[in-house]
Parts: sequence; structure tokens; C-alpha cells
Amino acid sequence: MSTGPIRWGIISAARIARRSVGPGIHKARNGVLRAVASRSLERAREFAAELEIPRAYGPYEALLADPEIDAVYIPLPTSLHHEWVIAAARAGKHVLVDKPFAVDATEAVEMVDACRAAGVQLLEGFMYRYDPKHARLRELVADGAIGDLRQINTAFCFPITRDPANVRLSTELAGGALGDLGTYCVSVSRLHMGGEPRRLAARMTDDPEFGVDFDGNALLEFEGDRAAMVAFSFTTSRRHFLELVGTEGTLRVDRHVLAPGESTSIEIQTVGGTVTELFPPFDSYQAEVENLGDAIRGEAAPLVDGDEAIRQMRVLDAVRASARRGKWVALQS
Amino acid sequence: MSTGPIRWGIISAARIARRSVGPGIHKARNGVLRAVASRSLERAREFAAELEIPRAYGPYEALLADPEIDAVYIPLPTSLHHEWVIAAARAGKHVLVDKPFAVDATEAVEMVDACRAAGVQLLEGFMYRYDPKHARLRELVADGAIGDLRQINTAFCFPITRDPANVRLSTELAGGALGDLGTYCVSVSRLHMGGEPRRLAARMTDDPEFGVDFDGNALLEFEGDRAAMVAFSFTTSRRHFLELVGTEGTLRVDRHVLAPGESTSIEIQTVGGTVTELFPPFDSYQAEVENLGDAIRGEAAPLVDGDEAIRQMRVLDAVRASARRGKWVALQS
Repeated sequence: MSTGPIRWGIISAARIARRSVGPGIHKARNGVLRAVASRSLERAREFAAELEIPRAYGPYEALLADPEIDAVYIPLPTSLHHEWVIAAARAGKHVLVDKPFAVDATEAVEMVDACRAAGVQLLEGFMYRYDPKHARLRELVADGAIGDLRQINTAFCFPITRDPANVRLSTELAGGALGDLGTYCVSVSRLHMGGEPRRLAARMTDDPEFGVDFDGNALLEFEGDRAAMVAFSFTTSRRHFLELVGTEGTLRVDRHVLAPGESTSIEIQTVGGTVTELFPPFDSYQAEVENLGDAIRGEAAPLVDGDEAIRQMRVLDAVRASARRGKWVALQS
Repeated sequence: MSTGPIRWGIISAARIARRSVGPGIHKARNGVLRAVASRSLERAREFAAELEIPRAYGPYEALLADPEIDAVYIPLPTSLHHEWVIAAARAGKHVLVDKPFAVDATEAVEMVDACRAAGVQLLEGFMYRYDPKHARLRELVADGAIGDLRQINTAFCFPITRDPANVRLSTELAGGALGDLGTYCVSVSRLHMGGEPRRLAARMTDDPEFGVDFDGNALLEFEGDRAAMVAFSFTTSRRHFLELVGTEGTLRVDRHVLAPGESTSIEIQTVGGTVTELFPPFDSYQAEVENLGDAIRGEAAPLVDGDEAIRQMRVLDAVRASARRGKWVALQS
């Protein structure tokens, strides 16, 4: 590995790579975007031209074989994460992989093991975790701004276009609203509750045409009899909020995980009234790229590392199991 | 029974009677407040003097024996509803009884049977049902203002003072947050979903000192894979809202069941923006008193009748059963 900036490659010409993470690598203080691979060389070349990337590869393997690539970003559909994270690790590449991390926790463990065995850094692309709003929320909770945090209420929903080409709607590619939207609800609940749920009850509805889950709710119970209620949906109108409810007040954030280029705010609601803290636009994609770069240099830990990805996936597995069985599911601590 | 206005008696000098329903009877176009009873004659006399009520009775039985009383309002603690609703019915009095209607559905059925056998009208005091906001919400949903209603999100929570004299905190009197606050969450969910949940999962936390439930959540699933998430609590800061979430928008009401003397509003949130409809203060207590009066005169049906009270109680029983067993509970349709 060179001692200059981290040399990045992108595996698949997905829209999120073109719009968000590719530009994030370009802006990163410690990275350069060196290559892109697509199953179609032509598509890779178009993408490379658009983002001014020097190298375009036809099959993904060709990019992994490039010795001048240090790290790869993998925005492939979920069902392909296992194969390509492991392939990247075996090729000695550090990995940033989109959420949801894997199809299930079994896959997740194998992926994490492969990265560990290969000595490469691994980061799950939960870019919202870098957003200063969430650090501020944790600080407010820790400082007692709302007394003791007791409840979380969060939703991430938008009506999806019924486009068969959308990977989110493919059972084969492990699409569905839980992996796409619900995973954020679960992640923010775990983050702000500061631990794992001890049990949960969930319901989910599969779309009769596409077969993937379009809609769901989960009730997560945490230590100390605290609870989170979450809603995720491809069916309902747009909802995208997080409420942290304490004994003495509520913190509310709209667009809490995704507000590219927009200012956002935290509302601190207490008996004394409502105080609003404003946050300027923040590029969470750039931040995650820089974090993996720092981790590769040994200058930081990955914020959402493999063990965290496994814990998150175990909760998603439990949500699915609860919905399928119609039972509460206990999580081992 | 006279042909003049309905002659009301109040059984117990509870605060809600003094502040809300007593004045509601005074204002009602078809009722007069004729008597009050308390276990303590002295307390009944004080109450009678304060509200300018001509007759004060020592034990409750004395009021029930008064042939010049047509209807009674029963704001007793929940555990006493069964005994005194049945006693009132047997004395030939029509009954307005506070929510929660009974300790459980078994009691509720006996109470309803007793009223039916005695030929008296029965109304559960879910005063919010008279609030024009809820009729307007139903109209908006029926008119497709938010597309298809898919989800409900509602909370009713306030931090309670730990006062052993508060009947809400007494296990013996069947207090607790579910009966006091959660029952509204369940009721508004049933009302706006237009039917009974087919199954539900719930969690509740009992207070270690008082023994009654202080906190709970429930996830209710309705026909058509629609769901309601509800939170009720004596522990968290004040929360009191209802959201009806559709495929094309959301209707939001703050202070949706209790806003005495205050203006309230419905926010209609759609892709086109947010429209706010304002509602002036409305006396729901007066409205329920007038409704029972009309029912006694055969001029209207009770809006929250015995069968409705039983259905509501069956759902509350299921919430308790689910929380106790840690299982989803199916409701028979």
C-alpha cells in the first residue's frame, strides 16, 4: 500500500455511488477515486467519464486484481454483499459496504471473519452515524436534557415507485423495506438506547406482486424497561423522523438519517418550551470515506465496524423471525 | 320519569365531576343536575354547595333510591364501576360511566347485561368521541385526503405525581396507565381504523412501589395489514398526539383527546404542503351528557354504547394478556 491518500475503487455503478459516495471520495481529505467496475465495461466507462475516474473495469474481479487500489466501496444489492466483501477482503482490499450489511447474521459473521483473516478494515456504510446531529443528541441525553431516556419513536417511510428494475423490490437481490429503511430505525434505536434490545415483536407485510416486504413495525424493548416503536414502509407517504422521549422532555429530529445538502435541526421540547438547534448541511458520505481511510492508516477505529454490523444484523434477523412466527423474539445479550 | 329535562345525580365527588362533567350537566340543553352522593355526607354537601346542586346524599344508595333522579354519572375508580353501574341499573337509573369502563371484559358484559335487563341507557364516558375534530378526521380519511389509511401513531403520556392518594396509582382500585391513558390510544386506533385489531403485541411496566402499570406500548394489527403503534405512560414527559398515516399524506392532531377550553387543530400533511384546520374549544362533557339525554328520550343512540364498551375492553384485556405472557394475542372477530 502506498503512503499517499487511500486509493479507492467502486464496485458497481449504482446511483448512490454516482451521486453520493463517489463525490464523497473526491472530497475526502485522505482518499482518491482511482477506479470503478461494472459488470458492463461500457457502463463503467460512462461512470468513470462522468466522475472523472481514471480507470474503468469490466468485471468486478478486474478491479480487485488492481494492485493500486487500497479500498473498495461496495454499493451492490444486498444479496451480493457476502460474495463481494469476501472477494475484496481476499484480494487485500479494505471495504466500505452499504447497509444493510448482509442478508442475515450468518452471512455477516462470515464477512467479518474474512476481513479479519485478511487483515483489512471493514466499515458498514451507515453514513448517518457521522452526522453531528446524532452526536449532539447523545450529548443532550447524557447531559439529562430530557431526564431519563425512556422511549424512542421513529419512522422512515416513503411511497416507492413500482419499478421492477428497482433492486429494492427484488426478492432475489434481498430487497425490501426492512433492509432499506427499517434498518435505519433499528440502528438509531440501538445507538440512542446505547445497547441491544432484549426482545422485540414485529409485523411485516410482503407485497403480493414483488414478494419483498413493503411495510413493517417493530416494538423493541431494551434494558430498564425502555422501548422503541419503529415504522418502515414503501407504502405510506413520506415519514422520516426520530423522537427521543425522556422523563422530562423530548428530542425531535426530522430527516434524521438522510438530508443531503439540507439544513436540519433538533427540537428540544421540555416543560419550559421548545428550543431548536440548527445544523448546516453535512456530507456524511465524505465522513465515512475519511473514517475508513483513517482506520486503514491506524489513526482511528471504524465507527460502524464488523462487530457492530453483526449486532445490527442480529436484530434485523429477529425482526424478520418475529414477523414470520408471530411471536416475540428474545435477543441474547 | 318526568317529561322535562333529564334529572342527573353524580355518584362520588371526584374531581372530574366537579371540574368537567358537573358543569357539563349544568350547560346541557336537556339535563339538570339534581343530586350528588359521596361516601361522606359532608363531602357531598360541600360539592353540592360548590356546584349549586339541590340534593346531597351520604351513601351512594340514597341517591339511587331517589325517584326524582333519571340518570347517574359514575366517576368512581375503575374497580367500583361494576358494582355501581349494576346497582344504578337495578335502581332504574340510566348510566354515564367513566372510562375505563370496567376492570375487564367479563365485568363489562355483566354491566351491559344488567343495563339491558333493566331497560336503562348506558354510555361510556369517552367524551373525546364527541369532539368535531374526530368526525372531521374520519371525513378526511373517507374523502381520501391522505390516500388509504395505513398506520396510526399515537401517544398519551404525562409524568404523574407519586401521590398514594391518587386513585390512578392504586392496584385495589384498578388504576394504571393503560386504563387511564392507554385506553384512549386503543380507542382512537379502533375508531379511525374502523374496526377491531386482529392481533396485538404489547409490553407494560409496573411501578415497583405502587404495583400498577406505569408505562406501556402496543402494536395493533388491523385488517388489510394496517397497524397502530401506541405509547402510554405515567413516566415520560407529556406527549399527547394522534397521527393518521396514509399512502398520500398524514393527519396530525396534538392534544387529540383532551384540550378543555383550548383551540386545537388538524394538520393535513401531503406532498403539496401542510394545511391546518383550526377548531375552537369544544365541551365534550356537555356533549356526552346531552347524548345520553337524547338516548333516554329515544331521540339518539348512545355514541359509546355497551357493546362498544365491551369491544374496547376486550382489546384492553388483550393488551394486558400480551404484556403478561410475552406473546402476540389474537382477537376474535
